[in-house]
Amino acid sequence: MLDQTQIANRAGLTEDEVRQIVRHELERSQKRDPAARKLAIIASKGTLDWAYPPLNLACAAAASGMEASIFFTFYGLNIIRKDFEKKLKITPVGNPGMPMPMPMPDIISGLPGMTSLATLMMRSRLRKHNVSTIRELLDLSRELGVKLIACDFTFEVFGYREEDFIEGVEFGGAAAFLSQARRAHVTLFI
Amino acid sequence: MLDQTQIANRAGLTEDEVRQIVRHELERSQKRDPAARKLAIIASKGTLDWAYPPLNLACAAAASGMEASIFFTFYGLNIIRKDFEKKLKITPVGNPGMPMPMPMPDIISGLPGMTSLATLMMRSRLRKHNVSTIRELLDLSRELGVKLIACDFTFEVFGYREEDFIEGVEFGGAAAFLSQARRAHVTLFI
Amino acid sequence: MLDQTQIANRAGLTEDEVRQIVRHELERSQKRDPAARKLAIIASKGTLDWAYPPLNLACAAAASGMEASIFFTFYGLNIIRKDFEKKLKITPVGNPGMPMPMPMPDIISGLPGMTSLATLMMRSRLRKHNVSTIRELLDLSRELGVKLIACDFTFEVFGYREEDFIEGVEFGGAAAFLSQARRAHVTLFI
Repeated sequence: MLDQTQIANRAGLTEDEVRQIVRHELERSQKRDPAARKLAIIASKGTLDWAYPPLNLACAAAASGMEASIFFTFYGLNIIRKDFEKKLKITPVGNPGMPMPMPMPDIISGLPGMTSLATLMMRSRLRKHNVSTIRELLDLSRELGVKLIACDFTFEVFGYREEDFIEGVEFGGAAAFLSQARRAHVTLFI
Repeated sequence: MLDQTQIANRAGLTEDEVRQIVRHELERSQKRDPAARKLAIIASKGTLDWAYPPLNLACAAAASGMEASIFFTFYGLNIIRKDFEKKLKITPVGNPGMPMPMPMPDIISGLPGMTSLATLMMRSRLRKHNVSTIRELLDLSRELGVKLIACDFTFEVFGYREEDFIEGVEFGGAAAFLSQARRAHVTLFI
Repeated sequence: MLDQTQIANRAGLTEDEVRQIVRHELERSQKRDPAARKLAIIASKGTLDWAYPPLNLACAAAASGMEASIFFTFYGLNIIRKDFEKKLKITPVGNPGMPMPMPMPDIISGLPGMTSLATLMMRSRLRKHNVSTIRELLDLSRELGVKLIACDFTFEVFGYREEDFIEGVEFGGAAAFLSQARRAHVTLFI
């Protein structure tokens, strides 16, 4: 049998006190919200310009302590092919928003050699501004533990093989992406 | 008046015990996080290749028990038009990332007939790899209860009418998308 | 020393009662989920058609009481340049999904003047349907308190200067976007 003091010590919490504890714990838990620490990106474009946003964002997230994963699918598989430097080109065709030294109708920018020219120009502009190369960003991603997943379904349709991809790449389907994304606040299709 | 034993039985919880209960309940609640079970996609592109990701992802999500909705807007409205098979084409123009049997400057791939040719080639490649057709994915979406919403604002601007769309489509605006998306972890603009 | 009644009054909560309080508070907190009230968009495209979705969605969200921010990067920087009306064009090239008065191979739609023609046609169609102009949407965004952030990294690479941008624009990098997005359910890359 407990004596009075023991009861008074143990007993103490009123409903109001309990609610206060709950609200305090909820606030703490929202600050630690695990979804706020996860980012899941789909990289679907296979050009030099659109290779940057998924790698940049994933590296920035991982560098700030977030868990980042990129799911490469469709043309985005180019980014993690061993020969990505040959594959990643840029074209002003169909993109009147691209800042070019001079305005150019698509009939001109569609001429043979224009894609190579635009790619060279973009590369030199990036170099001039000390922008990391895609190779540097891929290396950084793997150093920072960014998960790189190649869509196993698309790469078969596109006729690629596992050995076409850089080291450190995992293989998975839509379910692999969803299992990351459904626990992440930041989910982007690029 | 309660006797000692009754009080001891009822009273029992200390602040520590309450905090433990709270943390346990919080963990359980995070595992059941309703946002982890919702996916909301905007489908804005109207080509054969870009019709796949929204339907594939929504079906994969719905098949794994998630609640999925797709909001079709802009060129994405093509995907749910009754004549989608005629509308959904593919072009290598402006997409140097597309794997083609041989490299082709945009001036060539822009020639009359090249869009039809690329569309035929893509269709035959998809068939060879037993990829579901868009028709099959649309049927599957509706079977799995994926919500298909046509942007009522865009379809008027584009000169479409309600009867142009396949059965089972709902109509709504940005608010309809947001009401789904603001409760979903996975939100994608495709 | 407390008397019996005081103990009975204070003591009262059993574990079941505490769990009930916790679940009730959790439910309330999920309804107020702060992530459900935040939207963070990346606007990366610099054409007239793709300028609409980020501004439309952010305004719709802000109008319904959500906190909205748009991070403009790459070609999307065009949208918030002072000369956006000259910059934002539209091209049917590379987009066979665009509804045109008559089908057109890319070799034709790539001819000089076709981008201007398509832009004029789109503008007139939008006007006919009383669609807000980009200028009106930018004004509305700022009235509604939508945060407009220009990617400070890209705008240097593209050779833009701070004074090229409309008033009310802030400058920041990927970290600025992530700090918004990691607390938001709705995150979109447009």
